[in-house]
Amino acid sequence: MPEFFNVLPPDAARALLFQHLTQVMPAETIPVQEAVGRVTAVSIPAPHHLPTFRRSTMDGYAVRAADTYGASESLPAFLQVIGEVPMGKAATVTLGSGQAAIVHTGGMIPETADAVVQVEHTQVIHQAQQFPHEIEVFRAVAVGQNVLQIGEDVRENSEVLPAAHWLRPQDLGGLLALGITDVAVTRRPRVGILATGDEVVPPTETAVPGQIRDINSYTVGGQVQQAGGLPIYGGIIPDNFAALQTAAAQMLAACDMLVMSAGSSVSVRDMTVEVVDGLGTPGVLLHGVATRPGKPTIVGAVDGKPVIGLPGNPVSAMIQFDMFGVPAIYRLQGLQTMPRRGLVWAQLTQNIASESGREDYIPARLADGEAGLLATPVFGKSNLIYTLVNADGLIKVPLNKGGLVAGDMVEVRLF
Amino acid sequence: MPEFFNVLPPDAARALLFQHLTQVMPAETIPVQEAVGRVTAVSIPAPHHLPTFRRSTMDGYAVRAADTYGASESLPAFLQVIGEVPMGKAATVTLGSGQAAIVHTGGMIPETADAVVQVEHTQVIHQAQQFPHEIEVFRAVAVGQNVLQIGEDVRENSEVLPAAHWLRPQDLGGLLALGITDVAVTRRPRVGILATGDEVVPPTETAVPGQIRDINSYTVGGQVQQAGGLPIYGGIIPDNFAALQTAAAQMLAACDMLVMSAGSSVSVRDMTVEVVDGLGTPGVLLHGVATRPGKPTIVGAVDGKPVIGLPGNPVSAMIQFDMFGVPAIYRLQGLQTMPRRGLVWAQLTQNIASESGREDYIPARLADGEAGLLATPVFGKSNLIYTLVNADGLIKVPLNKGGLVAGDMVEVRLF
Repeated sequence: MPEFFNVLPPDAARALLFQHLTQVMPAETIPVQEAVGRVTAVSIPAPHHLPTFRRSTMDGYAVRAADTYGASESLPAFLQVIGEVPMGKAATVTLGSGQAAIVHTGGMIPETADAVVQVEHTQVIHQAQQFPHEIEVFRAVAVGQNVLQIGEDVRENSEVLPAAHWLRPQDLGGLLALGITDVAVTRRPRVGILATGDEVVPPTETAVPGQIRDINSYTVGGQVQQAGGLPIYGGIIPDNFAALQTAAAQMLAACDMLVMSAGSSVSVRDMTVEVVDGLGTPGVLLHGVATRPGKPTIVGAVDGKPVIGLPGNPVSAMIQFDMFGVPAIYRLQGLQTMPRRGLVWAQLTQNIASESGREDYIPARLADGEAGLLATPVFGKSNLIYTLVNADGLIKVPLNKGGLVAGDMVEVRLF
Repeated sequence: MPEFFNVLPPDAARALLFQHLTQVMPAETIPVQEAVGRVTAVSIPAPHHLPTFRRSTMDGYAVRAADTYGASESLPAFLQVIGEVPMGKAATVTLGSGQAAIVHTGGMIPETADAVVQVEHTQVIHQAQQFPHEIEVFRAVAVGQNVLQIGEDVRENSEVLPAAHWLRPQDLGGLLALGITDVAVTRRPRVGILATGDEVVPPTETAVPGQIRDINSYTVGGQVQQAGGLPIYGGIIPDNFAALQTAAAQMLAACDMLVMSAGSSVSVRDMTVEVVDGLGTPGVLLHGVATRPGKPTIVGAVDGKPVIGLPGNPVSAMIQFDMFGVPAIYRLQGLQTMPRRGLVWAQLTQNIASESGREDYIPARLADGEAGLLATPVFGKSNLIYTLVNADGLIKVPLNKGGLVAGDMVEVRLF
């Protein structure tokens, strides 16, 4: 018999699920340039300092700072330019007292120099194409000025990136700058997706009266991809306990996570609960979340793998998968906290009714108003996928609020 | 000779670039389930109503609403249940006056019914496993109540999605629900990326003193991927006009957009300007944007293709590419407005100095404070990629602001 649990608020429900997610995907090594959106499997130390040599941040002259002290427009310092450091070459020139060398932005500073005077603060006295020639310096520089020091970007052996870090384009740059061209990341979780329902046919088929096409597999599949998972489509299973149990067990064995879009009638939900409990331990963790839409969501875990039973209607399915499935996929990849969500603040154009003790998610359309963004709720039954197609994001009505009033500033979670 | 233009504010600079982007990628047809993040090439009409038949939104009984009028807990209506509509089948039962049929959530409503009474508001009088049997109805329903009407989600021939729409998981669902399993999208733009600099070596090589590894190709390449483009890596070109011109011309011919990470010294920038002008008309549109970091960005267009010359230092390169390159990639895909950016509001923990008349972007780290998010600027020279690695997003100091003060609420654009 299905065991019913209390209806939990979403945060508590997620916390309960996370307690049972004991698996993190194994590591695989991939080229850094293909690693955007992946998650590091191990902490990565810096193999050497960055930069490895002192570099100029300006076009100008490498100098000994003390030679410029007191220099001004009216009383310039005079320096003898004895050479140039070519880009990409080691600085071999040695500066004596009162001497300077031409350096370019990013170029190496001679060992005997300790600062760079930018070219705008100098003037060549003798139009010399050859060395030595003399310049006037109109501004003093301090030791270290306009110079990147060795290890200023990263120090050798310091942690470049921690384990469980979600890789962004700049992180790729950080690794490649150190010559790290392959990176160990967690494998992308395989997320098995089953649709159930005697009324459901594949999108490729014509739906006769009484039938509808399977869309939840693919909306959820898109969400899986966005979170870094690999959707594995298991097709449509009839409303039959044995068939669903067999398909669910096979899918769970082949995947790292299982999602069932479980139909919306009470009998089908009860069957899904029984199937999840039959897959292994602990099975169903909770059957009911204090949200709308999507209250009858089934959240479970089997041998450390998340198992989620979504309501059959497409709006609830997407919102609930966003609430439990997406965080679970990030968890499987090793992330303890999810990448921060895009949010915008907008002014609400209509009242929204809600019930205290329940988190409501209302699809909303954004438009640019005179004083900033406007959010207009897209009301519609949660059976209508076009309420989400016509929306830009979701307004959350918090657990403890009885509703929102036109004119309120609201947070809209972007799709 | 390079022609220098005024330094423009970023919005004006982008508008100028967009005037010259006359190409939109040609269409290609792909399976809908692979289309997340792609852009529709044409407007898509609905081939039929959705739903195609009247569906119940509840488990309960299909009824003629008039038969329930006046029903209450104390004075129930009595109805005769004459059959059940199985899921996935057409409703063949015909209701006479005072009759009802069992329906499940999502199931079809008999032609002669006009409402659904949910099961919770009924009671079976005779525990009948067979038809007919009698029920009590404790609540009246209005015509249409708990019923999805034909075409309520989408009407036949209405526009399902416009052209130039950025596809999200729910849009896939909207298409598949109508049996649209292939979609015409704009081809992913090929973005040619060249690094220049005598000091630059590939990340796979050991950098000897004076040399640095190429990272801009790959940070920008990651940004290209995130915007839906295909990075084409052209490698490292020496600081030599003829070499750069040849490589740039070849890359532009093979691609839909060209990006050059142009080194940071004035002479290299001048050379890049000349190369861009030599590629075709109009060539360089502006050389200088009123931002920091990244003022010396080169923005151009050749035969409708965007050409961007980035500053050589990695922080400026990424921020400037985000400002011009990313919107250009979306433009090439046909989008008139970019997908909305993720933003969060946070309280600034330190003062930030700026200059009026310039847009500043300061990398910032986010942390959860007691009263909400806190944003701490990551100060650092724009040569240091780790200022971005250690940041979660960018704080924008608007053009007309002289700076920001600790305690201010600031908008942080998430990476």
